[in-house]
Amino acid sequence: MAIDFILHPQLAKDTHCLFDLNSLFVLLHKNATIPWMIIVPKTKATEIYNLTDELQISINAIAEKIATVFEYQFSTEKMNIAAIGNIVSQLHIHVIGRKPGDACWPDVVWGANYANIKYTKEQVINLKTQLEENLSTI
Amino acid sequence: MAIDFILHPQLAKDTHCLFDLNSLFVLLHKNATIPWMIIVPKTKATEIYNLTDELQISINAIAEKIATVFEYQFSTEKMNIAAIGNIVSQLHIHVIGRKPGDACWPDVVWGANYANIKYTKEQVINLKTQLEENLSTI
Repeated sequence: MAIDFILHPQLAKDTHCLFDLNSLFVLLHKNATIPWMIIVPKTKATEIYNLTDELQISINAIAEKIATVFEYQFSTEKMNIAAIGNIVSQLHIHVIGRKPGDACWPDVVWGANYANIKYTKEQVINLKTQLEENLSTI
Repeated sequence: MAIDFILHPQLAKDTHCLFDLNSLFVLLHKNATIPWMIIVPKTKATEIYNLTDELQISINAIAEKIATVFEYQFSTEKMNIAAIGNIVSQLHIHVIGRKPGDACWPDVVWGANYANIKYTKEQVINLKTQLEENLSTI
């Protein structure tokens, strides 16, 4: 199933692809205002409970590694981890770093209006490198 | 840790307690406008990835059973499964049944303004009974 998996164009448009792994993508949301990654398992399933146990655990383990990077890089204090999929049904898990005083705090980020700030190329590479170091321990 | 676990008063206030199990609570949000349950693992951890693998899988398995009940009872078509915790830090996982045309569709439910409709006692008992039948297969 993974072989013919095509990332939804909306997800591709909104993100930088950091990792294209065997079983999933790890994407970085292009808006740097809120530290936000998206994990997309390569599956046709649309609900997280339809994944194998192994993949469910891997996704949470990657979310933990993302949290480590976000805490180090952006001093985030809380993660928002969510599978919504009302608009883009391709299963994708939001992994968002939050802290008091951020652009949406304490509200959720979805549907909120806030500034659109772009990462620099160096920032994207830096986040990818940091996450890669953390992912290597999974 | 579970023995001295106290459900956060905000969660207790907003919900009907359907099940007080060994490792977690299953709660029904009192507002019947959107079918919405909340799973609260009995832990001091505030992030889902800090739970044991077994408990992470159990939570998703219960979410699947909730989905089955919501699909049967309310014809929901999509689940929104999320751990947010910006306001109430006690770890709780939202398990929400959605369908096109519901009061918030396609937006998320958090922060939205919509009618506050109460379940009848019979409806609460009915949902509990249906979920109990489904949970017994876990």
